[in-house]
Amino acid sequence: MTLLVLLDYAAVLVFALTGALVASRAQLDIVGFAFLACLTGMGGGTLRDLLLDRTVFWIADPNYLAVASGAAAVVFFTAHLLESRYRAILWLDAAALGVAVAAGSGIALSLGHSAAITLVMGIATGCFGGLMRDVVANEVPLVLKQGELYVTCAFAGSLATVLVAPLGAVPAALACAAVTIALRAGSMAFGWRLPVYRARPPKS
Amino acid sequence: MTLLVLLDYAAVLVFALTGALVASRAQLDIVGFAFLACLTGMGGGTLRDLLLDRTVFWIADPNYLAVASGAAAVVFFTAHLLESRYRAILWLDAAALGVAVAAGSGIALSLGHSAAITLVMGIATGCFGGLMRDVVANEVPLVLKQGELYVTCAFAGSLATVLVAPLGAVPAALACAAVTIALRAGSMAFGWRLPVYRARPPKS
Amino acid sequence: MTLLVLLDYAAVLVFALTGALVASRAQLDIVGFAFLACLTGMGGGTLRDLLLDRTVFWIADPNYLAVASGAAAVVFFTAHLLESRYRAILWLDAAALGVAVAAGSGIALSLGHSAAITLVMGIATGCFGGLMRDVVANEVPLVLKQGELYVTCAFAGSLATVLVAPLGAVPAALACAAVTIALRAGSMAFGWRLPVYRARPPKS
Repeated sequence: MTLLVLLDYAAVLVFALTGALVASRAQLDIVGFAFLACLTGMGGGTLRDLLLDRTVFWIADPNYLAVASGAAAVVFFTAHLLESRYRAILWLDAAALGVAVAAGSGIALSLGHSAAITLVMGIATGCFGGLMRDVVANEVPLVLKQGELYVTCAFAGSLATVLVAPLGAVPAALACAAVTIALRAGSMAFGWRLPVYRARPPKS
Repeated sequence: MTLLVLLDYAAVLVFALTGALVASRAQLDIVGFAFLACLTGMGGGTLRDLLLDRTVFWIADPNYLAVASGAAAVVFFTAHLLESRYRAILWLDAAALGVAVAAGSGIALSLGHSAAITLVMGIATGCFGGLMRDVVANEVPLVLKQGELYVTCAFAGSLATVLVAPLGAVPAALACAAVTIALRAGSMAFGWRLPVYRARPPKS
Repeated sequence: MTLLVLLDYAAVLVFALTGALVASRAQLDIVGFAFLACLTGMGGGTLRDLLLDRTVFWIADPNYLAVASGAAAVVFFTAHLLESRYRAILWLDAAALGVAVAAGSGIALSLGHSAAITLVMGIATGCFGGLMRDVVANEVPLVLKQGELYVTCAFAGSLATVLVAPLGAVPAALACAAVTIALRAGSMAFGWRLPVYRARPPKS
């Protein structure tokens, strides 16, 4: 269980950094930074816990709020040191996605859910926080950006959790994070992608 | 109860088709199709189950996930055969709305809720999946499109459930779906509508 | 407990008025008014109750639905008398924010939650309904509007609840609403604000 708690902390921290960086692009004040950091950092896990009918993780342990708010404060005072905040958001988001998918699928597995539910919980935990961040801040959701893998990475990572699970929870979490992040990084750096739908006649 | 399960399956299937068609307009890959199909197909019922504090229906029975993903795959490979995907979305959405409203209001009734809660659950189940689809995909939400009945159809259908309920669950579900779909179709085909608010002075 | 119920009623009523006014700007019909009024009026409290694993307040007592729908009807027939609907939305929203933050933080306190959770529940209850209203109606979310205090007011109000709580629930609720509304009004009328993040190099 300790591993899953660590993964939740790491996912909250890194997603909160991306939320605060989006807040910096929107030129919000420090409370706005903390708001977007908490929404992004804890949105995915909150959805997972509501769906699985568990106590919401940050209500059970409010330290998560301190982590997300601290990340917001750090970004507020240091973001100007970054050369490109947009690139920082993309790469941190990739790392956070990997960790959050591992946390979500790991918790579903540890509760004894089936492979199908484990897959969905990994995807929901990984994608929902960033989706909320982008919808609220009126940016194009990374989840749906054309020509890049995103949900696919979360899906592959969740699948890795399910496949590696017989070897133990730690290898499963490592495999999940590694697969998710590698695929996402490959997609951003080398343009890896799946074939997209293209209508033969013009868009109707 | 079997009837309500059937209605849930039908609503998931048809809403998933609309989600996948929206994915085709956004030129996503097949995982993006499945993501939008699941979100649209299961969003309304998920909200209903969270509000009513039931086990979320697709966690209790993961076959719903297979239905929505299968619908996404079918659309991915056949959507180019459609003459107008936008018209297909509109008409499938109308059918899905009718079935989902019947599922939502029927379940609320079967749990012994009051007429007011039944009305709201019908509307929430019917409208939320499509709303999520449109917000995430950045389309104008059908729910709020001017000069067309949408929420009104869901409201009238839920009302039909309440009024016909004394005759049994099957007639109530049939009446609900028929009223919802007929009103929505009439609104699209013949321009049926309620008077809208129009300010006398220009928009302020 | 009666005080908290009263606050919930007041928050639902005033937020519903803002939802209906947004519906009037979008030129919806009367069912659209009721839909946006219910979403805005009950969204924040619904999120709070889901997070705290309580029975959703308007399912326990459907009279809230009547209040929100009644507010929608009143606005539908009288909004044209307003000189500026946008200003009315802003000021009603400020009042609703104050009352809803008091309701949210007061309920969290009365359930024995920690100061951190109380702060978050005040902010979530206050901000979520308006956020849903603006996202669904495609307006720029007030929550994130630059150069104005919004989340900060909710934060300060929640803090007032926590600090004044030892004196009793009534003074705490009054202090919370007063602080929230005063800060928000000062921000709108006199331009009070916190320093915002500004990158030294141009936006990257």
